[in-house]
Amino acid sequence: MDRQELVSQIYSKGSYLCVGLDTDPDKLPDTLKNDPDGVFTFNKAIIDATRDHCVAYKINTAFYEAMGRKGWELLERTADYLPTSHFRIADAKRGDIGNTSTQYAKAFLQMLPFDAVTIAPYMGADSVRPFLAFEGKWGIVLGLTSNSGADDFELQRMAGEGSPMLYEEVLRKVATWGHPGNLMFVAGATRADAFTRIREIIPGHFLLVPGVGAQGGSLGEISKKALTTECGLLVNASRAIQYASASSDFAEKAEAVAMAYRSEMTSLLLPRIGRIGRMPI
Amino acid sequence: MDRQELVSQIYSKGSYLCVGLDTDPDKLPDTLKNDPDGVFTFNKAIIDATRDHCVAYKINTAFYEAMGRKGWELLERTADYLPTSHFRIADAKRGDIGNTSTQYAKAFLQMLPFDAVTIAPYMGADSVRPFLAFEGKWGIVLGLTSNSGADDFELQRMAGEGSPMLYEEVLRKVATWGHPGNLMFVAGATRADAFTRIREIIPGHFLLVPGVGAQGGSLGEISKKALTTECGLLVNASRAIQYASASSDFAEKAEAVAMAYRSEMTSLLLPRIGRIGRMPI
Repeated sequence: MDRQELVSQIYSKGSYLCVGLDTDPDKLPDTLKNDPDGVFTFNKAIIDATRDHCVAYKINTAFYEAMGRKGWELLERTADYLPTSHFRIADAKRGDIGNTSTQYAKAFLQMLPFDAVTIAPYMGADSVRPFLAFEGKWGIVLGLTSNSGADDFELQRMAGEGSPMLYEEVLRKVATWGHPGNLMFVAGATRADAFTRIREIIPGHFLLVPGVGAQGGSLGEISKKALTTECGLLVNASRAIQYASASSDFAEKAEAVAMAYRSEMTSLLLPRIGRIGRMPI
Repeated sequence: MDRQELVSQIYSKGSYLCVGLDTDPDKLPDTLKNDPDGVFTFNKAIIDATRDHCVAYKINTAFYEAMGRKGWELLERTADYLPTSHFRIADAKRGDIGNTSTQYAKAFLQMLPFDAVTIAPYMGADSVRPFLAFEGKWGIVLGLTSNSGADDFELQRMAGEGSPMLYEEVLRKVATWGHPGNLMFVAGATRADAFTRIREIIPGHFLLVPGVGAQGGSLGEISKKALTTECGLLVNASRAIQYASASSDFAEKAEAVAMAYRSEMTSLLLPRIGRIGRMPI
């Protein structure tokens, strides 16, 4: 999916919601716990219930890998079920030397039908660039993450002019390896204070923002600081939507939460884009 | 596998060779290219041919993921075939927020029979620690990697006393999250100049050293700088062994290369440990 299609989706729905599918078999509602195909049935129901309210889905590969061979099959089936109208993200946090990153890119952008993969930047240019070499596909590089461990390295200061923090250097340098049409960055909603600075460094790139909902970040605060005239945000909620209810009404409750996010997003977007439904000129 | 078992293996074989299984279906010998089970047959032959000469195997997960569902099955079958006498590494370079890292750790250290997983440190403590919580298992954290991209962040200087490079800070800080019995670091053989400094920061930890062979690092130079009385090194070769020959004699040639590495390692080890076959006191 290219940038214009993504922006068009966002404008027409008044939503920049990404629904995360971090499905843990231990957290399935009781009605699905003994179903041998429970995880897929659950994912399918969550997708069906939320698709009108979100523009993207993000599958956290760890939860599927933890199920072994059967998990990779579930990952494939879930990815295949994601609507092609939506931006489909493999949240895999991969990154290795060039020839290996190319294999990871193939895994998610060719063998599986994802539009984007999340990437860990530690190993530098030749570990990131292979993900940006696929026409119409995207790399989403970790910038400033939502977890407490961001303090350990990401928020440490570097030597040199202005003593930038490591994540600032990552944003600045990685931005030169791609462009706003094939590269996004992860910025955690729990780091709201940093969003003004992030927008100074990368004014035009989309940000994938985890950390609202279960992790406690504020949608309103992030949006005020980082929305652009092309929206520029995909805000993810996983647990808050998937596990909105532990009972058989889980899909209904998931839809209600997704709808509430969409509604808040519409009101945050409106001042930026004029009216919902119109594409930017 | 615990540290004593690993050191014992190394002493008795006079080898600290790790054989990498980065199997690319396009690089199989012609005799196996049309075999529907060619990758597994190839891996099995490489393992059988090299097991007497190495103490560890490292499976690069990217090459298997790039084959889709069938690839994960091959990863499982290959991991199951690895001899339990050897240290078994999933070279997966994972790392995410705590609850997700726990899922990755489960995938490789519980569902699959690996002794260790490689980890990207960018996201900090709560992304690394879950891998260190499994009895008898190990995390192997990226320190200074062998690729050119290491210049981009790993070798950049941080602010503060002594202006350490990022990788030095990573070694220093991550070492406080585990101990030499559950934590190793990756240090690329192409970075020989740094090995003296690396040993100053982490004198007791094992290093997993990729980058000899196809990437051009020197086994002799690394070993002189970083061997300890408990060896403290696992030096990996992947392509140099796997693709030593493109013909039907590939296993024979792989064995010859592995044997040559072992022989060089024995002569490098001897001055440190006295004689081969004896365990350290």
